[in-house]
Amino acid sequence: MKLLVCLKVIRYCKWIWSWSFIFLRRTSPIAGDIYSLAMSSSMFSMRASHGATLAHEQRTMISDSMYNKSDFFNKHLLRFKTYRASSNLEHSSVSQKGRIQCRAIEVESNHTFLKGDKFQLHDVIEAQQFDRDILSAIFEVAREMETIEKKSRGSQLLNGYLMATLFYEPSTRTRLSFESAMKRLGGEVLTTENAREFSSAAKGETLEDTIRTVEGYTDIIVMRHFEGGAARRAAMTANIPVINAGDGPGQHPTQALLDVYTIEREIGKLDGIKVGLVGDLANGRTVRSLAYLLAKYNDVKVYFVSPEVVKMKEDIKEYLTSKGVEWEESADLKEVASRCDVVYQTRIQRERFGERSDLYDEARGKYIVDREVLDVMQKHAVVMHPLPRLDEITVDVDGDPRAAYFRQAKNGLYIRMALLKLLLLGW
Amino acid sequence: MKLLVCLKVIRYCKWIWSWSFIFLRRTSPIAGDIYSLAMSSSMFSMRASHGATLAHEQRTMISDSMYNKSDFFNKHLLRFKTYRASSNLEHSSVSQKGRIQCRAIEVESNHTFLKGDKFQLHDVIEAQQFDRDILSAIFEVAREMETIEKKSRGSQLLNGYLMATLFYEPSTRTRLSFESAMKRLGGEVLTTENAREFSSAAKGETLEDTIRTVEGYTDIIVMRHFEGGAARRAAMTANIPVINAGDGPGQHPTQALLDVYTIEREIGKLDGIKVGLVGDLANGRTVRSLAYLLAKYNDVKVYFVSPEVVKMKEDIKEYLTSKGVEWEESADLKEVASRCDVVYQTRIQRERFGERSDLYDEARGKYIVDREVLDVMQKHAVVMHPLPRLDEITVDVDGDPRAAYFRQAKNGLYIRMALLKLLLLGW
Amino acid sequence: MKLLVCLKVIRYCKWIWSWSFIFLRRTSPIAGDIYSLAMSSSMFSMRASHGATLAHEQRTMISDSMYNKSDFFNKHLLRFKTYRASSNLEHSSVSQKGRIQCRAIEVESNHTFLKGDKFQLHDVIEAQQFDRDILSAIFEVAREMETIEKKSRGSQLLNGYLMATLFYEPSTRTRLSFESAMKRLGGEVLTTENAREFSSAAKGETLEDTIRTVEGYTDIIVMRHFEGGAARRAAMTANIPVINAGDGPGQHPTQALLDVYTIEREIGKLDGIKVGLVGDLANGRTVRSLAYLLAKYNDVKVYFVSPEVVKMKEDIKEYLTSKGVEWEESADLKEVASRCDVVYQTRIQRERFGERSDLYDEARGKYIVDREVLDVMQKHAVVMHPLPRLDEITVDVDGDPRAAYFRQAKNGLYIRMALLKLLLLGW
Repeated sequence: MKLLVCLKVIRYCKWIWSWSFIFLRRTSPIAGDIYSLAMSSSMFSMRASHGATLAHEQRTMISDSMYNKSDFFNKHLLRFKTYRASSNLEHSSVSQKGRIQCRAIEVESNHTFLKGDKFQLHDVIEAQQFDRDILSAIFEVAREMETIEKKSRGSQLLNGYLMATLFYEPSTRTRLSFESAMKRLGGEVLTTENAREFSSAAKGETLEDTIRTVEGYTDIIVMRHFEGGAARRAAMTANIPVINAGDGPGQHPTQALLDVYTIEREIGKLDGIKVGLVGDLANGRTVRSLAYLLAKYNDVKVYFVSPEVVKMKEDIKEYLTSKGVEWEESADLKEVASRCDVVYQTRIQRERFGERSDLYDEARGKYIVDREVLDVMQKHAVVMHPLPRLDEITVDVDGDPRAAYFRQAKNGLYIRMALLKLLLLGW
Repeated sequence: MKLLVCLKVIRYCKWIWSWSFIFLRRTSPIAGDIYSLAMSSSMFSMRASHGATLAHEQRTMISDSMYNKSDFFNKHLLRFKTYRASSNLEHSSVSQKGRIQCRAIEVESNHTFLKGDKFQLHDVIEAQQFDRDILSAIFEVAREMETIEKKSRGSQLLNGYLMATLFYEPSTRTRLSFESAMKRLGGEVLTTENAREFSSAAKGETLEDTIRTVEGYTDIIVMRHFEGGAARRAAMTANIPVINAGDGPGQHPTQALLDVYTIEREIGKLDGIKVGLVGDLANGRTVRSLAYLLAKYNDVKVYFVSPEVVKMKEDIKEYLTSKGVEWEESADLKEVASRCDVVYQTRIQRERFGERSDLYDEARGKYIVDREVLDVMQKHAVVMHPLPRLDEITVDVDGDPRAAYFRQAKNGLYIRMALLKLLLLGW
Repeated sequence: MKLLVCLKVIRYCKWIWSWSFIFLRRTSPIAGDIYSLAMSSSMFSMRASHGATLAHEQRTMISDSMYNKSDFFNKHLLRFKTYRASSNLEHSSVSQKGRIQCRAIEVESNHTFLKGDKFQLHDVIEAQQFDRDILSAIFEVAREMETIEKKSRGSQLLNGYLMATLFYEPSTRTRLSFESAMKRLGGEVLTTENAREFSSAAKGETLEDTIRTVEGYTDIIVMRHFEGGAARRAAMTANIPVINAGDGPGQHPTQALLDVYTIEREIGKLDGIKVGLVGDLANGRTVRSLAYLLAKYNDVKVYFVSPEVVKMKEDIKEYLTSKGVEWEESADLKEVASRCDVVYQTRIQRERFGERSDLYDEARGKYIVDREVLDVMQKHAVVMHPLPRLDEITVDVDGDPRAAYFRQAKNGLYIRMALLKLLLLGW
């Protein structure tokens, strides 16, 4: 275990050195250049309990860099960069006795991102990893990706790179979106649709062993898992980047990013927007992640519209309050729709109701976005939905320019192209 | 709905304009060139009934073009082009209450096809879309594809293009054939083998919604579906080309094309040929489609040889008669084989007999193509089979040069390469 | 059948002619060059018994080549080449009544392998096909592949080549490894994860028919099958190369090769090594193949350490004795570990114990490689494992530099890259 952790440290150090080297190469031919080297400090602790191997890792990486470039290059002033990733990771043992507890990885930054710089993140595991500066920079790359996808046949940006989609539960939509993103950039894909039946997994191999094998065949892993925390465990193990494409009831960070990206693309801003979250707010991880990310912006107002049985949980409400985000609950969809910039509808998930199909039917029919709702909405407002939809948005809404949900699905492609580019090539 | 239809119209118009533009570009530097612009008229009507959203679309696109080219170019006389596609399409509603009725899309043309021209079809849905002129032109492209596949490693014709295989029921043979076709031309593929378990479809998403999402990730969709009419619904929804790779009891147009192509390649002609259709004529969609396409040629004679329980149905017989195609039924396979250019054997499908395995066994053993049948066949004649075969052709026939069924399977590759090239790049 | 065999002969002859042609082209511009043409003699016999079609094929291909090259080229002296492949192949009939008996294909060679020469093998079916000269030459190519994989993004060596993975039982690890190998060399892949549900196979199509169809779509077939001898049958049918990726209880030759390659890479030699085979020696095909290949080297010592119920079988012991390889059985893992260069641990396969889970549990816990075992091992020694592992190697061993099993898995990539390159392009 210790050795693995050491390897991680060595990897991070290698980054910093190669990074410094890039600066040196850039700046050396030019007189008057100054640059200050990145520094890294890492602290590790480890303990074992209840027959499980637990690894607590707290990584702090601080890099201060400042340099001037001659007029020959564009002048950029690289501000003090602070990248802090702290994670509390526990490795469950083979015997699965170890409890898995996760604290958020947080990135607090105030960057200017330079072309050619290393991307700040090694893996994409949680929506919480992103602050508004890095989001804004990623969105800029996503817009470049729109141009690439629309204009040029066969970008070769990721030519020679290989991505493995390791899906422990089926999610064809997400998988195709990632695979399309990779191929649109000239990269190649290894597909595993049924990793759960992965002969090795079926025989009892740990996720860690699978990852150590698969990372030998590819440059980046996109993983979908039925178990919360699995993506983080994979990222801890792998020496190559891991993207979480959904892990059980946990996170689905690329969905959260594409939602925020879509709002910015459709409304033109994120500060000061009014968002109505409608439908299954108790179980939908997308609305929870979205609420979380919206809290990073100023003067945001959130409305919750949901049947009683699937109301937004207290933790998110408290979180919003703590961040100074105004929110209110309402039972009047039309009233909310008339005020909002974004009506974010979600599917009532039948699987959450078990035997109580009466409750399901009642909840399902309660808040439908139809022409009547559309009629009260503002001209510039949009309807969003993470898809798939059943009848919570009627098909006659599809033709309205304010129906943004298929554009939203397409934006998933651009966000994933951007993340693949950033993780493999940097800014 | 209206908006979607409008988008379709806009798309068609864009084609025509870009097409005119191509003519302009070609002809403008040359004095004396005349060209007449393509015209388009489209009529749409829409009605709703029984809670379903129905869309009747009748498209008529007439384009007359004539121009002279200077000696500097090859001299081609572009004849009056007439492309008429009329379709009667009904969109089933989400509630699936709408009856789905389909009339054939028919293309009646008398073309000279010029390199660089737009392909006449946006989608490949039914064998009925093709007349003999367009078939003949497609076969020419298929022969070019043979050359490409045999001579050059790594054609880059479709470099940068992405094809999605959306298979709602497994058909590895067809899928591999399409994927090979795409990759032989330098294109890339997104694979979905189990679209039926597509998490979204399982959750109740409509085919239309799935298509609207998937079309964002790819340039062309190849779809296999368990439901008749599904391909047409997909084509109506998608703004990118859709190829029907078989929809339930309905159509499998690329199989029909490769069958006709194989006859032309093996016998050297289509007019005046004698074809014996053998085996399960009641249920085999390949023999039905083949009979339909053969009716487009002159002086064709068709023999039906089948066990009583799986006789050719009346509709095809009537159709052949109406088109002036001679046909007869026979119980003597050898006698028919001695007269025919093509003996087209098919598998008796066990799944059609349910509990009556006695009837199945009787039917199955009745007409076997073996060495004895081969011995009475003419030197130039061939045995064809859509595959897979069980024992309706004995393995000792395989070695005979007249056993064309594996060449026929290979021809599927060339036909699919040709269609992908035509739909994505044009003539 | 005869015809098929004839086609095979014609193919081999074509090789030899193209081979001679390569020599001619190389040598013709240079005076004084001498070259002797390859000769081929093939004998075939065929008989049918018990309703089965049996084909005995004995191929002998002898090629003697000698030439001098001018100083302009590197000077190589091509020694007398002898390639003899004798195989006793039986084709099972469609009715599956034919017994399948296989004798080894053996290659006895004493080569110098020249860049650009044709690879000696058309297919990779069994570990027994390889002698130590050819193994050594393949390992050299594998090391080149390591360089290619590590240094250059996007090798284009196999650009334009297409590989089909035809997997009749799932083995994601092996499949991904082959697909990665192909893509790392710029080749493309057609994937079939569930060939068993291949609609055609499900309908009763023979393996031979499937192969004849699939070979039309691709340049090389990698096949995994649940039936022993299936790979050989496929190779007999196909005109393109077939690689056996495991056929039932039979062979898994690329695993055997990567094991030997790993020993050479880790220990630096193969002659004179001491190897401890631990765990399930009765059922593990990897240890059986490894023992077989080790017998090709000098002064090898093999130790068998296994629970009583899964002891190494007599046939391998007798084989080793006949080849002069020393071996002994031991119940003391530590004692063996202290003496060995390689401790090759294997998983006790639960599926072999049926209802007797008590026996399984007893066998499983008996010989565990843990820190204590590691402590008595020599500095230069390594622990290997074909993976997946359960707890027969404890996770605290992973961090030790002598834990070679993940490097071993990675070596599978290089061996497969080498084989694909050799089968498709030659030396």
